[in-house]
Amino acid sequence: MTNATDDFHREREELNELVLSRGGKITKRFFNIDTQVYDEGRLPGRFKELLGLVASTVLRCEDCVTYHVLRCSEEGVEEEEFYEAMEVALVVGGSVVIPHYRRAARLWDELQRKGGRQ
Amino acid sequence: MTNATDDFHREREELNELVLSRGGKITKRFFNIDTQVYDEGRLPGRFKELLGLVASTVLRCEDCVTYHVLRCSEEGVEEEEFYEAMEVALVVGGSVVIPHYRRAARLWDELQRKGGRQ
Amino acid sequence: MTNATDDFHREREELNELVLSRGGKITKRFFNIDTQVYDEGRLPGRFKELLGLVASTVLRCEDCVTYHVLRCSEEGVEEEEFYEAMEVALVVGGSVVIPHYRRAARLWDELQRKGGRQ
Amino acid sequence: MTNATDDFHREREELNELVLSRGGKITKRFFNIDTQVYDEGRLPGRFKELLGLVASTVLRCEDCVTYHVLRCSEEGVEEEEFYEAMEVALVVGGSVVIPHYRRAARLWDELQRKGGRQ
Amino acid sequence: MTNATDDFHREREELNELVLSRGGKITKRFFNIDTQVYDEGRLPGRFKELLGLVASTVLRCEDCVTYHVLRCSEEGVEEEEFYEAMEVALVVGGSVVIPHYRRAARLWDELQRKGGRQ
Amino acid sequence: MTNATDDFHREREELNELVLSRGGKITKRFFNIDTQVYDEGRLPGRFKELLGLVASTVLRCEDCVTYHVLRCSEEGVEEEEFYEAMEVALVVGGSVVIPHYRRAARLWDELQRKGGRQ
Repeated sequence: MTNATDDFHREREELNELVLSRGGKITKRFFNIDTQVYDEGRLPGRFKELLGLVASTVLRCEDCVTYHVLRCSEEGVEEEEFYEAMEVALVVGGSVVIPHYRRAARLWDELQRKGGRQ
Repeated sequence: MTNATDDFHREREELNELVLSRGGKITKRFFNIDTQVYDEGRLPGRFKELLGLVASTVLRCEDCVTYHVLRCSEEGVEEEEFYEAMEVALVVGGSVVIPHYRRAARLWDELQRKGGRQ
Repeated sequence: MTNATDDFHREREELNELVLSRGGKITKRFFNIDTQVYDEGRLPGRFKELLGLVASTVLRCEDCVTYHVLRCSEEGVEEEEFYEAMEVALVVGGSVVIPHYRRAARLWDELQRKGGRQ
Repeated sequence: MTNATDDFHREREELNELVLSRGGKITKRFFNIDTQVYDEGRLPGRFKELLGLVASTVLRCEDCVTYHVLRCSEEGVEEEEFYEAMEVALVVGGSVVIPHYRRAARLWDELQRKGGRQ
Repeated sequence: MTNATDDFHREREELNELVLSRGGKITKRFFNIDTQVYDEGRLPGRFKELLGLVASTVLRCEDCVTYHVLRCSEEGVEEEEFYEAMEVALVVGGSVVIPHYRRAARLWDELQRKGGRQ
Repeated sequence: MTNATDDFHREREELNELVLSRGGKITKRFFNIDTQVYDEGRLPGRFKELLGLVASTVLRCEDCVTYHVLRCSEEGVEEEEFYEAMEVALVVGGSVVIPHYRRAARLWDELQRKGGRQ
């Protein structure tokens, strides 16, 4: 785990707490289904993470891409699978996807080197 | 196959021909990679179609959703897998995804009934 | 109520039933919060419908705009309020919003004439 | 001019009148700058129409694309220029642009055949 | 007012001046209507700010969200109203809205504590 | 050239190398057409850069806007042309385009002052 990743998680957790304590029941229910939708089902959990990664990438949500790259790595997605999924996002979403593709690749690379998954 | 599906394919083919005969080399190359990106790879072809379906759905491209629903059905995607993927699209993309989800479900339903795949 | 409006509601209901019977629990929960979020709260229900209308318009979801125009009319939104909200959507979302603005205005006009709300 | 084009213009004009008569001053001012921005300037009018066409295409606004294809044809844009601009839109916006590219090419083709501009 | 808020305003003002001095009349007119559209009308000014906040949030424009959170706070929007509006944005725009929701909540929280509005 | 510009180019090149060395053939082919599409053609290269700038601006891709502002300046686009193009983007894309317009204007200004192109 990189320090940048630690910071990302810490800030994310702190702000999720703020939002969940101040927001109403809709916020809580949305956050619940936002977790449950990636649960192992008929589709394996790691494939659902790849779906989330591609959806976040074509919608160009930086924090969402970071989150799903981390999750994909934790779920044991292989490097080739990661790049094949990003290429679908690239073709569907066009060249505006490239900045996100670049940063996702950098994070993926850092995670593999730290984790010895290479 | 429904008649609506036949019409969709016919119009699509006719206009693709027009675009490819009048457009330049960029058009041809883009269309080529738009086919190749869904080829069987480390990820199975049917998973790639699901990635294309989810990407098209969150970007709310009606013709693209129709096309990927047809391709998912041809590739033997199961009903539960189809709905799990659409639910990821729904949560990531929000309620503006619902009209596309509804029409994708109707087309999926027609295809399963015709094809006896139920 | 116009016939077009009846057809819109009928098709919407039929497909919602399909989606809810075939989709999983995520679908049901999402549909629930998609209803609850517009409930009367600290903000009046009619103002929440205007928020939904503006959000749908800048995201350019045709069916969503139709739905929220109908709901705004049912909730007793006044004509001036409707147009002021659409103008916020126009300025925030730019000229690509105009086709939706035009069709929303036509539907609003039909609803006021039928309903005698003018 | 095709009949479909006549219908497009007629409906557009009727609804613009409705919107301008019911909406407030923001609507009028926005519509004014939406016309003025395409006026001949340091950039020739036909280049500005191509800018409008590409912007509308990557944002995937069907009516806007139709309108700018008509305007490009009226302004004497050449076929090669039209396709080069659409290819920029295709690469920037990705495969979700293709359905709009196809329909724009069909309309362009009809206009050139009617107008003998081939 | 936080220092971050001061910096945000200063940079915004400096760059607005640059854009207005170098750009043409379209820029000036657009900036004018971008101010006027939030003026008190049939809808109260604070409701219009909430409309602007929700529109900016679903379109995921970070600077626009920051601006409208500041304006909502200045206009005396209540905390519950703020969260109810953000929940509409969350449901309409999906989980890609969450990073903006989190940062908007943090800014809102800072503003309330400084302003003693709690 | 500013230092910020140097950093932008260096990081961009490093990450492009990473992506091209790890990604598959789709990545390479996409990157190729993403270069070729801006080549001098029937439309002059500088006008294609303006098309790319407007497309990137309405899609609100920060890195893409930065890149095309640099390229427009290198291609000898004039200040009035730059602003006329940005105004088309502003009207088509709405007020959410403004933060990108502001930063593009700042970069343009820096480039003209360094380059003595004023």
